[in-house]
Amino acid sequence: MPQPSESVTAAILVIGDEILSGRTKDKNIGTIADFLTAAGIDLREVRIVPDEAAMIVEAVNALRARYTYLFTTGGIGPTHDDITADCVAEAFGVGIDVDERARAMLLERHKPEDLNAARLRMARIPFGADLIANPVSKAPGFRLGNVHVMAGVPGIMQAMLDSIAPTLTGGAAMLSETIEAAGLPEGNYAGDLGEIAKARPAVSIGSYPAMTPDGFRNRIVVRSRDAQALAEARSAVEALVARLSA
Amino acid sequence: MPQPSESVTAAILVIGDEILSGRTKDKNIGTIADFLTAAGIDLREVRIVPDEAAMIVEAVNALRARYTYLFTTGGIGPTHDDITADCVAEAFGVGIDVDERARAMLLERHKPEDLNAARLRMARIPFGADLIANPVSKAPGFRLGNVHVMAGVPGIMQAMLDSIAPTLTGGAAMLSETIEAAGLPEGNYAGDLGEIAKARPAVSIGSYPAMTPDGFRNRIVVRSRDAQALAEARSAVEALVARLSA
Repeated sequence: MPQPSESVTAAILVIGDEILSGRTKDKNIGTIADFLTAAGIDLREVRIVPDEAAMIVEAVNALRARYTYLFTTGGIGPTHDDITADCVAEAFGVGIDVDERARAMLLERHKPEDLNAARLRMARIPFGADLIANPVSKAPGFRLGNVHVMAGVPGIMQAMLDSIAPTLTGGAAMLSETIEAAGLPEGNYAGDLGEIAKARPAVSIGSYPAMTPDGFRNRIVVRSRDAQALAEARSAVEALVARLSA
Repeated sequence: MPQPSESVTAAILVIGDEILSGRTKDKNIGTIADFLTAAGIDLREVRIVPDEAAMIVEAVNALRARYTYLFTTGGIGPTHDDITADCVAEAFGVGIDVDERARAMLLERHKPEDLNAARLRMARIPFGADLIANPVSKAPGFRLGNVHVMAGVPGIMQAMLDSIAPTLTGGAAMLSETIEAAGLPEGNYAGDLGEIAKARPAVSIGSYPAMTPDGFRNRIVVRSRDAQALAEARSAVEALVARLSA
């Protein structure tokens, strides 16, 4: 296993009744997962909770305490069900009010006479937070401590993620190699693969079956922060697949 | 709000490093969410955790205690990283061993001489569990208490879900209506919509912006278990949208 000093961890908290009802299919988890893997940050946990203050506060506090970074999506618009900013303030025990920097951003998009109470909700930022720019529709996200609060609309979330990327400290990148086991059934190689994995604590080995029109198509993925250990494990797995396919 | 007696709740636990790494994009959450909504069961929380026993056991115990039903996906194959069955047994404090009913199912697909130790892992079932049939590849899932353990491969998960559907008790179905706010900006109706929501505790109202090539396209969704309250709320929202669009 990698040393703890090499490991930078993260969690995602998706906030929104519309995801839990199935009406909206989440796209942000996969996007953030890819982003974090590329940045050398281990995504360790994801939670999806409804638009309810008690559940949001509990999840924010559980996840921010446990991981290096927490990324939230959703609940920062102008309507009554957008309560993420207030919940994050409550989780940290800090105040929240209209932020003049955020108001200025909204004024880049809205005329002063259109900046009604509802829109000003989008400028409510917990005290002590840094803003995360929103090049799409201006209403900003924010970072408070290790918590990054982003929009739920995928296009805006992606833009926010890009803008915070330079501020994140990644760990040693996790390297991975995929070995196609193709038509070889998992049950044929599972025992030997387990032995290979057990003997290589610096390498994580997974076997992932997928159904295709041509039947099961299995892939074995080896992952490690140590390039040499990864190459050695890959060779061992390839030799196993070759032997069983012969 | 619906009476507690009318509310049947659920959580989903997705188990798998491959989802957290981004390598595999989850499709099961949306499928199960749609299924539960149709069954009148409130999906209240989702978690995704890695293939690590401590995290799986903790999540199983947290979620099974809190909700009527827990549905897990992933980690029931034949390889060393498939540890869900053992973790569920540990969470319940019960033993686990090869189950003769499950072995018989595997023998429908595999010759006795091919039923090696790895494949027999798929017949390891916690004591006291009922099996969930797998018409696709035979290796069963299982139900222990209120926890339903299903495969991660979407086609198999779906088949398992269909087979357990008749065993679930749904609550009063949640009804919903969608009002298109189309080009109306959220900030224009957010204040009034909040008032409409506040005055109708039996109805849940959400506003969901989406970016399209034609700009923002907002939808307001009203949900309730009470058909009359729903119809009244829908009229109120439609009147609001009509007034602001005029």
